[in-house]
Amino acid sequence: MRVLGIDPGLRCLGWGVIETEGSRIRHVANGLCRSDGGDALAIRLMALHRQVAQVIADHAPDVAAIEQTFVNSDGAGSLKLGQARGVALLALAQAGLEIGEYAPNKVKKTVVGVGHAAKPQIDHMVRMQLPGAVPEGPDAADALAIALCHAAHLATMRAWAQVRA
Amino acid sequence: MRVLGIDPGLRCLGWGVIETEGSRIRHVANGLCRSDGGDALAIRLMALHRQVAQVIADHAPDVAAIEQTFVNSDGAGSLKLGQARGVALLALAQAGLEIGEYAPNKVKKTVVGVGHAAKPQIDHMVRMQLPGAVPEGPDAADALAIALCHAAHLATMRAWAQVRA
Repeated sequence: MRVLGIDPGLRCLGWGVIETEGSRIRHVANGLCRSDGGDALAIRLMALHRQVAQVIADHAPDVAAIEQTFVNSDGAGSLKLGQARGVALLALAQAGLEIGEYAPNKVKKTVVGVGHAAKPQIDHMVRMQLPGAVPEGPDAADALAIALCHAAHLATMRAWAQVRA
Repeated sequence: MRVLGIDPGLRCLGWGVIETEGSRIRHVANGLCRSDGGDALAIRLMALHRQVAQVIADHAPDVAAIEQTFVNSDGAGSLKLGQARGVALLALAQAGLEIGEYAPNKVKKTVVGVGHAAKPQIDHMVRMQLPGAVPEGPDAADALAIALCHAAHLATMRAWAQVRA
């Protein structure tokens, strides 16, 4: 099963694809979708939407997961992030993908073991769990972590289903 | 020139189309794009995107305008609104439309004359300025007000350009 993780952002949106087969997990690809800060907001959203759709077309994930976002002290920044997240969700839904949503702390806790891990720790743990993976940047490492979190969640769900069956 | 106004919202997104010819302005159409609160967020965003794209296809506007949004005390609500606004902006950009953005107070000041007009005042002034228009609801009235605001802004820009020429 291929899992696409998305770390939403307006300037730079991270993505990562992993593949699970039983208990084995391997890295498929990761990267960044970017928009030009000099362009109008709508043009930037269109660029992100097109790039996310291209990632889906290139890597044919079976499921997807995206980081939950919250309003922080930077209200304007939160709104920009929300709009970028909206078009990413749209691209996933248009591809017919089921979407998992995880709070940043949940992702960190699953992948690093603690809820308040710093970016270098996430990058380190992602490389540990996905041999050969070289994240294109912190946002791509986060996206791979989100994909790993979703894969772990789905594996737990399957295990529970077997216990109950 | 046809102007499409959008009042963004996740549950209910208002739209209104007006047509200007010189100093004359007439109502073309207005309505609401809705999403089902029982659906997942991504499905709701996809429903809104499809409906906004349909409005554009049906009414072939030349330009568009959308209300600016701000983070208010309801942070979660602001984020939902931001995501809905993102997919509306995307639909406008995908149609190649230039987009004006106006703060709610600017719209009210242009259409009603004061920056803190209540919804019934907006509805009243929209009906006054667009004979025959029957807004489908407050969000559609707001959308027509946004279109009127953009038309007024463009007329002022043209007048200034002539003065300067």
